[in-house]
Amino acid sequence: MDIVMDAQALNAFLARDFPQVADACSIQAVLPDRLVARWRVDDRHLRPGGTVGGPSIFALADVAIYCAILSRIGPVALAVTTNASVDFMRKPAAGRDLLAECRILKLGRSLAVAEALVFSDGMADPVARCSMTYSIPPKTPQNSAL
Amino acid sequence: MDIVMDAQALNAFLARDFPQVADACSIQAVLPDRLVARWRVDDRHLRPGGTVGGPSIFALADVAIYCAILSRIGPVALAVTTNASVDFMRKPAAGRDLLAECRILKLGRSLAVAEALVFSDGMADPVARCSMTYSIPPKTPQNSAL
Amino acid sequence: MDIVMDAQALNAFLARDFPQVADACSIQAVLPDRLVARWRVDDRHLRPGGTVGGPSIFALADVAIYCAILSRIGPVALAVTTNASVDFMRKPAAGRDLLAECRILKLGRSLAVAEALVFSDGMADPVARCSMTYSIPPKTPQNSAL
Amino acid sequence: MDIVMDAQALNAFLARDFPQVADACSIQAVLPDRLVARWRVDDRHLRPGGTVGGPSIFALADVAIYCAILSRIGPVALAVTTNASVDFMRKPAAGRDLLAECRILKLGRSLAVAEALVFSDGMADPVARCSMTYSIPPKTPQNSAL
Repeated sequence: MDIVMDAQALNAFLARDFPQVADACSIQAVLPDRLVARWRVDDRHLRPGGTVGGPSIFALADVAIYCAILSRIGPVALAVTTNASVDFMRKPAAGRDLLAECRILKLGRSLAVAEALVFSDGMADPVARCSMTYSIPPKTPQNSAL
Repeated sequence: MDIVMDAQALNAFLARDFPQVADACSIQAVLPDRLVARWRVDDRHLRPGGTVGGPSIFALADVAIYCAILSRIGPVALAVTTNASVDFMRKPAAGRDLLAECRILKLGRSLAVAEALVFSDGMADPVARCSMTYSIPPKTPQNSAL
Repeated sequence: MDIVMDAQALNAFLARDFPQVADACSIQAVLPDRLVARWRVDDRHLRPGGTVGGPSIFALADVAIYCAILSRIGPVALAVTTNASVDFMRKPAAGRDLLAECRILKLGRSLAVAEALVFSDGMADPVARCSMTYSIPPKTPQNSAL
Repeated sequence: MDIVMDAQALNAFLARDFPQVADACSIQAVLPDRLVARWRVDDRHLRPGGTVGGPSIFALADVAIYCAILSRIGPVALAVTTNASVDFMRKPAAGRDLLAECRILKLGRSLAVAEALVFSDGMADPVARCSMTYSIPPKTPQNSAL
């Protein structure tokens, strides 16, 4: 399926519709088979010990997968997560941003399934694995964000 | 298993060790078979349309389940989430706090499993269902938060 | 929502449309807030050590949740599982049947979410926790099993 | 981590310790980064419409992931699944075997996490995605299957 929103278009969409998220998260690349997103780690996301907590990892995966779907279907603001499964496998490295690599496994008319691996920037072993299902509403003028 | 930390003790623990979380989340009650936690919804948690986003729901369930485990084993700061599964079932009501009702299903030596139902305050139907596994480290002076 | 299929009707449905499953699984009770199903354990389901394996537990939860949904919407043979999450918490007791207690959390037009706790017959602590999402097709003459 | 059991050794292990499973499932290849398993579909696994049901897909993923872990740590019969998450994405093709491609994401001292994509033989789009956590007991003479 063609790419209909690139990284620049997705970041503009996040900045306008999800300003709290856009503050921390940016889309780095939209490639034919995956999307890469970055989470800028700052003090708000840190847990005791200086590492990033589970909710930040979840938030990054959620945005990355949402944008991966939008990159194929355009800015449907009302797509919603219906299911998420996360395995937290390693402690994130202190003081490093998080990167999510996201891949779409199914893009149906009403349901999309995608997965993301989350890494500490510069590290080879994933911090977390996440899969999510999104429910996609029928595209109408009302739910198009354009 | 006996309750070893009540709501007051858990809130004091959160305030000291997780100040960012304690700002939004408070433990309302620790009962023999469940724990109730409240998430004070403010502008930071809102998505387009005025409802609370998935990451806030995840964060609430994560804290509630963490505190439900601590209420039984005491303040082990290094217990970590290893797996989470969430079903987002309904849109949270705008302008209402979220409540999580949490129940422990297994409390083993090294793994604990618990589930939470999340509600918009005053609503009967759950917004989300969440189950999580926590890995519990051996209790040593180093990882006791006391 | 009203009960439209009771245990007898569900067992007749399983015997006709799912003979392999009906051989092992029977619906014991359909109550206002839950359904109880039994899995007759025999040699085919045993793992080394004489206990029931994960796939049998999964199969029981799948049938129980499917029947819980059918008990409310009638015999829609084409409802399909889209997501399942299982926590295996304890080893089943050797030589005992398994029981699943199933509860519906959401019954929407196109998606249903339910959860099941699985027990060894006569034991108080659950063997497994399972949640599943079912996709429900529009009810037409073609997909009605009646 | 080195491969310590190849496909032949894994199939011999299954035949001896899991005869019911070995009847349907065989390990096709153990590669440096993944394991491929085949599920021979026969009448027992079919659902109305002639396709393979969720429990067979689950059983295949469970065996494939179990063998992927054993291929690295040797025949530890007591490793047990503690968590499984499955997305069923497409209907399997009628009359075709299922193939699982499995990849280990974490192999820790006590927990292993792996994922599998399941395909109908000869088809490009996955039927299901599965991730599982296995608990690995300390290796002692008692739980070694050798």
